[in-house]
Amino acid sequence: MVAPLNVGVRVVAVTARSKAKKRGLDLRGIDWAKDPLTLAGDPGIDCFVELMGGSGEPALSAIEAALKSGKSVVTANKALIAKHGLRLAASAEKYGGALNFEAAVGAAIPIIKTLREGLAGTDVNRVYGILNGTCNYILTRMEQDGLSFAECLKDAQRLGYAEADPSFDVDGHDTAQKLAILSSLAFGTRVAQSAVYVEGISSIAPEDLRAAEELGFRVKLLGVAVRTAKGIEQRVHPTMVPKSSSIAQVMGVTNAVTIDGEGIPPITLVGPGAGGAATASAVVADIADVARAIRAKPFGRPVAQLRETKKAPMERHEGGYYIRLMARDLAGTAATIATRLAEQKISIESIVQRHPDGVDVNGAARKASPVPVILITYATSEDAVYRALRAVQRDKVISGRPQVIRIEKN
Amino acid sequence: MVAPLNVGVRVVAVTARSKAKKRGLDLRGIDWAKDPLTLAGDPGIDCFVELMGGSGEPALSAIEAALKSGKSVVTANKALIAKHGLRLAASAEKYGGALNFEAAVGAAIPIIKTLREGLAGTDVNRVYGILNGTCNYILTRMEQDGLSFAECLKDAQRLGYAEADPSFDVDGHDTAQKLAILSSLAFGTRVAQSAVYVEGISSIAPEDLRAAEELGFRVKLLGVAVRTAKGIEQRVHPTMVPKSSSIAQVMGVTNAVTIDGEGIPPITLVGPGAGGAATASAVVADIADVARAIRAKPFGRPVAQLRETKKAPMERHEGGYYIRLMARDLAGTAATIATRLAEQKISIESIVQRHPDGVDVNGAARKASPVPVILITYATSEDAVYRALRAVQRDKVISGRPQVIRIEKN
Repeated sequence: MVAPLNVGVRVVAVTARSKAKKRGLDLRGIDWAKDPLTLAGDPGIDCFVELMGGSGEPALSAIEAALKSGKSVVTANKALIAKHGLRLAASAEKYGGALNFEAAVGAAIPIIKTLREGLAGTDVNRVYGILNGTCNYILTRMEQDGLSFAECLKDAQRLGYAEADPSFDVDGHDTAQKLAILSSLAFGTRVAQSAVYVEGISSIAPEDLRAAEELGFRVKLLGVAVRTAKGIEQRVHPTMVPKSSSIAQVMGVTNAVTIDGEGIPPITLVGPGAGGAATASAVVADIADVARAIRAKPFGRPVAQLRETKKAPMERHEGGYYIRLMARDLAGTAATIATRLAEQKISIESIVQRHPDGVDVNGAARKASPVPVILITYATSEDAVYRALRAVQRDKVISGRPQVIRIEKN
Repeated sequence: MVAPLNVGVRVVAVTARSKAKKRGLDLRGIDWAKDPLTLAGDPGIDCFVELMGGSGEPALSAIEAALKSGKSVVTANKALIAKHGLRLAASAEKYGGALNFEAAVGAAIPIIKTLREGLAGTDVNRVYGILNGTCNYILTRMEQDGLSFAECLKDAQRLGYAEADPSFDVDGHDTAQKLAILSSLAFGTRVAQSAVYVEGISSIAPEDLRAAEELGFRVKLLGVAVRTAKGIEQRVHPTMVPKSSSIAQVMGVTNAVTIDGEGIPPITLVGPGAGGAATASAVVADIADVARAIRAKPFGRPVAQLRETKKAPMERHEGGYYIRLMARDLAGTAATIATRLAEQKISIESIVQRHPDGVDVNGAARKASPVPVILITYATSEDAVYRALRAVQRDKVISGRPQVIRIEKN
């Protein structure tokens, strides 16, 4: 690492929960601080690197202490930045240190620097991406092998891509924390995880992925932050993306972020979003920026200038929708659905009626077992979609709950 | 632009060849300098932005003068940076100004900043990409519509994607200039366009694109800079890339760069590589860096530390090869080719024999008209390939010149 860095960086002190743990590293000649707070207060260091994780203590106090003593801080801690980033950025500003967190989102993908500096001269209209490798691995396996969510999750856990408690990843919260950070950088708003609408991938069925394939889409868990007439909309949910888009090509644990800047075609950054070496790549680059005095405001602008953002009411979200229903009676259902959608002024882009395996050729079984009907709508509002679906449900022509997936066009 | 920038930047003076030209801009309140040198010497400015182009005068002297007076310089001029970048970087270092040229490569794609800062902590093993939209547009059209190079070039010219004299683009020189800049940033070497091996796309035939498709590849004009045991190899040539790679998905005038860092999966940046708004995006970001005192060394390291690099002898290049031959006599040719390749210790990964349209079913015409034979080799050296092909030519079993395209694996 010394050669590419080419700046004088010296690791002088370190601490961790266990001093005895074997790390395959020679720590002789490096001070062992008794705890993070002591290390943060050490007058012999210029830059405090926090790699403990967790949105609370001891990371928070240690970083705060380091910043208050005028040190620069480098962290990979997305949870902490999503929760306390503004407070820490304010301290960095006040006491003159840097607060760099490139590794917090997309690991080695330089998305923080790109939004903060590389696109400083561009009005961003939308930033969206695949920010969680676990979810993308699961969706990729489901699509490629026709397996269920539960089976793929088990596989991901076996391979170490998912935690024993996978909910933080699969329910979208990890993506939401990262999106909150990107959204702040892209739009100059205050980081607010609470402003992000969140929906996970556990409801996605292999049927949805097959239907997506047929209709020219792929399903990805996206974090999307977009400028609308009503404000910045931040949302995390399973999304149908056109198969031809850059983001649709991203398979397995890889991450990707696309930025739509005013007047220019989209810019997409693809790469490893996790892993020790990928995280280290970003952490060392952040340290190098400190050493070379390359210093940007943590969120691109002074904290005082960042604007409030509210949680977007999803019922007012506008876009295309994928809807999968189980029709009790095909002929009657199609007419009913068409009527109910028309009442809400929703136009249908395409409709696919699927016959379940095992239906005999003369259709004798059709009345007995429900038949899937898949619809793609043109852009409409979310409440119109749900009003129409509630009406269809009242009409008793479908069984079970309709599956609804938002479409994100490129 | 003022809102996202959020720094006090004021355009105070401007100059151009013609003052009278209509630009759709209100230039009242902005001084008109009589020439670039005068503007560069104006003590009232902090940052000189050069958007004239050309690898020589007046851009060179004007930038040099601006730097020598301690000003920072922002330029989109790849030709100038490829030719005189070191000299200008030395002046920037000496007199304390910045020299930013994000727009010179990949326009709005933040590839310069990514290599210079974002990957400062990562040893780069290879950087490669589609750096010329004209060539990628032509190859995309050739592939999608089965047209010849000449037809697609004419189309590109009609659409304004190619110049009246297209040789700078299609012969690979534009890509070579950009690659020389990226290579310096990635490997800490002195920028040297003369060290880049260059081959254009005019020899690519629709048959090559069809064969690539069948064999799981696409043909792209790549600029590749790679660390080898013999030094940094810089080369621009038509390249077979696996269809599954990120770079293979990039169609039309879009640009893309992939960076292989030590120990981490590849990072790919995709976006608009040309166009007024995309160039402006990068230029304004560079100006913002100047205004916010975000200051890196122009080539990441002090000029004195950049290492010399020599032109890699391509006969020693190692990799897989695509070879397309026209066999005079199919049975005899296959045996001869196999023998000649074996003599050079070249292993064949796949072989496809194609029957030209119009051959009758009983094969009566086969002896009369040559039949294409397509080979994919495992990694070997370029001189082994050409030794084998010369032997095959001496055997007189093929007609015409063999087509050889290098393969770049991801």
